[in-house]
Amino acid sequence: MTSATFQLAQFAADLRFQTIPESVVKRTEDLLVDWFASVIAGNGSRAVQSIGFFAQAMGPQNMTAAAPGTAQVLLSRTRSSPYFAAMANAAASHVAEQDDVHNGSVFHPATVVFPAALAVAQSIGASGQQLLTAAVAGYEVGIRVGEFLGRSHYKVFHTTGTAGTLAAAAAVGHLLGLNAQQMQHAFGSAGTQSAGLWEFLRTAADSKQLHTAHAAAAGLMSAYLAKDGFTGAEQILEGPQGMAAGMSSDADVAKLTDGLGTRWATAETSFKFHACCRHTHPAADALLQVITRSSLKPEDIDRVITHVHQGAIDVLGPVVRPASVHQSKFSMGTTLALVARFGHAGLTEFEQHFLDPETISLRDKVSMVLDTEVDTAYPQRWIGKVTVHTVDGRVLQGRVDEPKGDPGNTLSREEISAKAQRLAAFSGGATADEMRTAVTALWGIAQTAVVGDFLI
Amino acid sequence: MTSATFQLAQFAADLRFQTIPESVVKRTEDLLVDWFASVIAGNGSRAVQSIGFFAQAMGPQNMTAAAPGTAQVLLSRTRSSPYFAAMANAAASHVAEQDDVHNGSVFHPATVVFPAALAVAQSIGASGQQLLTAAVAGYEVGIRVGEFLGRSHYKVFHTTGTAGTLAAAAAVGHLLGLNAQQMQHAFGSAGTQSAGLWEFLRTAADSKQLHTAHAAAAGLMSAYLAKDGFTGAEQILEGPQGMAAGMSSDADVAKLTDGLGTRWATAETSFKFHACCRHTHPAADALLQVITRSSLKPEDIDRVITHVHQGAIDVLGPVVRPASVHQSKFSMGTTLALVARFGHAGLTEFEQHFLDPETISLRDKVSMVLDTEVDTAYPQRWIGKVTVHTVDGRVLQGRVDEPKGDPGNTLSREEISAKAQRLAAFSGGATADEMRTAVTALWGIAQTAVVGDFLI
Repeated sequence: MTSATFQLAQFAADLRFQTIPESVVKRTEDLLVDWFASVIAGNGSRAVQSIGFFAQAMGPQNMTAAAPGTAQVLLSRTRSSPYFAAMANAAASHVAEQDDVHNGSVFHPATVVFPAALAVAQSIGASGQQLLTAAVAGYEVGIRVGEFLGRSHYKVFHTTGTAGTLAAAAAVGHLLGLNAQQMQHAFGSAGTQSAGLWEFLRTAADSKQLHTAHAAAAGLMSAYLAKDGFTGAEQILEGPQGMAAGMSSDADVAKLTDGLGTRWATAETSFKFHACCRHTHPAADALLQVITRSSLKPEDIDRVITHVHQGAIDVLGPVVRPASVHQSKFSMGTTLALVARFGHAGLTEFEQHFLDPETISLRDKVSMVLDTEVDTAYPQRWIGKVTVHTVDGRVLQGRVDEPKGDPGNTLSREEISAKAQRLAAFSGGATADEMRTAVTALWGIAQTAVVGDFLI
Repeated sequence: MTSATFQLAQFAADLRFQTIPESVVKRTEDLLVDWFASVIAGNGSRAVQSIGFFAQAMGPQNMTAAAPGTAQVLLSRTRSSPYFAAMANAAASHVAEQDDVHNGSVFHPATVVFPAALAVAQSIGASGQQLLTAAVAGYEVGIRVGEFLGRSHYKVFHTTGTAGTLAAAAAVGHLLGLNAQQMQHAFGSAGTQSAGLWEFLRTAADSKQLHTAHAAAAGLMSAYLAKDGFTGAEQILEGPQGMAAGMSSDADVAKLTDGLGTRWATAETSFKFHACCRHTHPAADALLQVITRSSLKPEDIDRVITHVHQGAIDVLGPVVRPASVHQSKFSMGTTLALVARFGHAGLTEFEQHFLDPETISLRDKVSMVLDTEVDTAYPQRWIGKVTVHTVDGRVLQGRVDEPKGDPGNTLSREEISAKAQRLAAFSGGATADEMRTAVTALWGIAQTAVVGDFLI
């Protein structure tokens, strides 16, 4: 009887492109394009720049495009070692709150898996199919680790930082050709570096970018170390002094191997439509439904009660008066106010309108209450339920069972392309032509013999 | 009323060489020499080499000694960015189990504080007094964070990895001239990257070196980011989703500021005399007392009962049949067997004799039982108590109240020099002449205008 950690490691090591269903491959391509756009969306962020400066100062200097063994830092279009490229690109792709999310694990896979996988693929000259396979390995591992760690973990820990370290290790380990035992050692080294606390939310600090940067870089390092013979704990996840013992009170070891090889968790991943914390999306879509159905204007609204799961209260609850654009994306009130005013809550709406008096006035009319049905369904299903009280005394109910972007209500390739163009136009990180070229190349990744640069 | 985290940050930022008592300065010099020797002792370790290879592959290439802004990787005598020098030197200094320990916090300060502080001091050309002051800031912060996190934390987490990240951030932040608020941000970024689990002990994996490498590097990064304006949680230690909330059930916030500026925790730090886990030392010294007093030979011993604190059982308990030299340093039985056979348990004794049939036979005669007096006194005092049953039926008691190396039973400068020479001779990391030169220079650090290299 092998351990759950070993089975998961073996899966990540032995996965082959040919065994991944075509629909999952296609969805992984979509996730790659969506991730690339989320990196570009991070252009101009001070926090992302700080991590980029650090990577530049501490890493190799003046690498040319032709330098072997290097990878691209996408925003600066410079080259560095894969370690620092992964660090910088991971920081960049989580700041606009537009990167993907897996509901059941409350884990953002793209922002930790793709930075590490792309950087290593570029540096070793892997094929596009190898990159996709490595990404699927990373998604399948990270999602299961997130599910395993459970809801108690997520109350204090940012799962994308913690589970993300193992996800990055799995993807990089796959690209480096680790065998199952080496992969298990990589997991041990990754899990023992696993970190990320929600405390930063209280003051809207920059830690979210640091969490993804750390997860991608530490996971990558763990895989390289394992390749060199460096050993890690054999049961870092479920062992008596492992991650669950230290950081969870409701861990479920069965989740680690749930449907390995038959259930493709990668394809369960949701795209983000609104540009904010995923916990706001179900209620935002439910409010949009009420507004559309009853043709409400902002001034018609007296108050909005959102019926939510406990996780929403844990993460969004501390944000009462958001002081920055980034913090406003963790405000249920701000998100719903922007939806009521503009019909959607995109990057531009947050950037330009989160402190408008009209937004603040609406924001303060929104409350959250714990709802048993929503909370019980969570995190497998993210149900949105709102009760809207109008100034003329009506009480209107809204409900959505799958928010926009979920697998049953997903984005088409046209919508993903359009979102990518919107993000680039907003941030100025790439021109429309550059985005078109890059996105086309990324959708052809499965036919790419050697992964190179997507931005010149 | 400012938060405990802020007060600690302010102390680390505002500390000045002139306000540190001379006895504490002298002790810090001793700790620096002892740390330097512990790096040299790591020469030849495969795990340390792996981290060194990674740092070399991912960092700046072919730096010359004259390159500005760089630091020395001590074992390879090459230069890198301070980030990678800190990473490599931290990995090196924790493998021989000869680096210092602070009893009350069960925290090894030197191996995380000095690698980060020395690397940054070299790279910015700080003075020796600045380096010493930064080190004291790191010790005072790390020790208090370890005490704050408490015994529940240490059951699962390797405090040197977790508290060590903040200790390194404090030392580097001081050298970079952070103000109190920036230091608080550095603590936020460090604490949210804080990691290190004991699970690796079960299979004698290499994680201990990774923990110190990670703590030194992540702490250093946190300070550089703060200098650049990157923000962190304001109360990463005591906040409702901070370190204590996630990783401790008996955290005591009063410990964070206990005697700040009047109690010098740095000077409470113990040197290691035996070359193994500190939890074995009190019992080892107590056994030595019995053996000396009653002139026992190994074959006179029928069995040894060690009366220990719970922490010893938690850390040493899983190690029943040590399979490697490193794992044998976490075996109470092996340590006591070597003490009985050779009168001390040094690097050579572990390396050459941990699997001798005589050692194994004695090892298996040693047991641990929880002792209320010892456990209650711990971790402030590490009392050693043993009961020795002889083959001729005698029952002999041994007891030491301060194991060799503790502040009340400390090592003289001659003993520290001799230990440094022994470690270098064992590992071959430096010649006797090189050690003499380096140790002399390090003891003159307070008169050094610009910190440079100690090995050519």
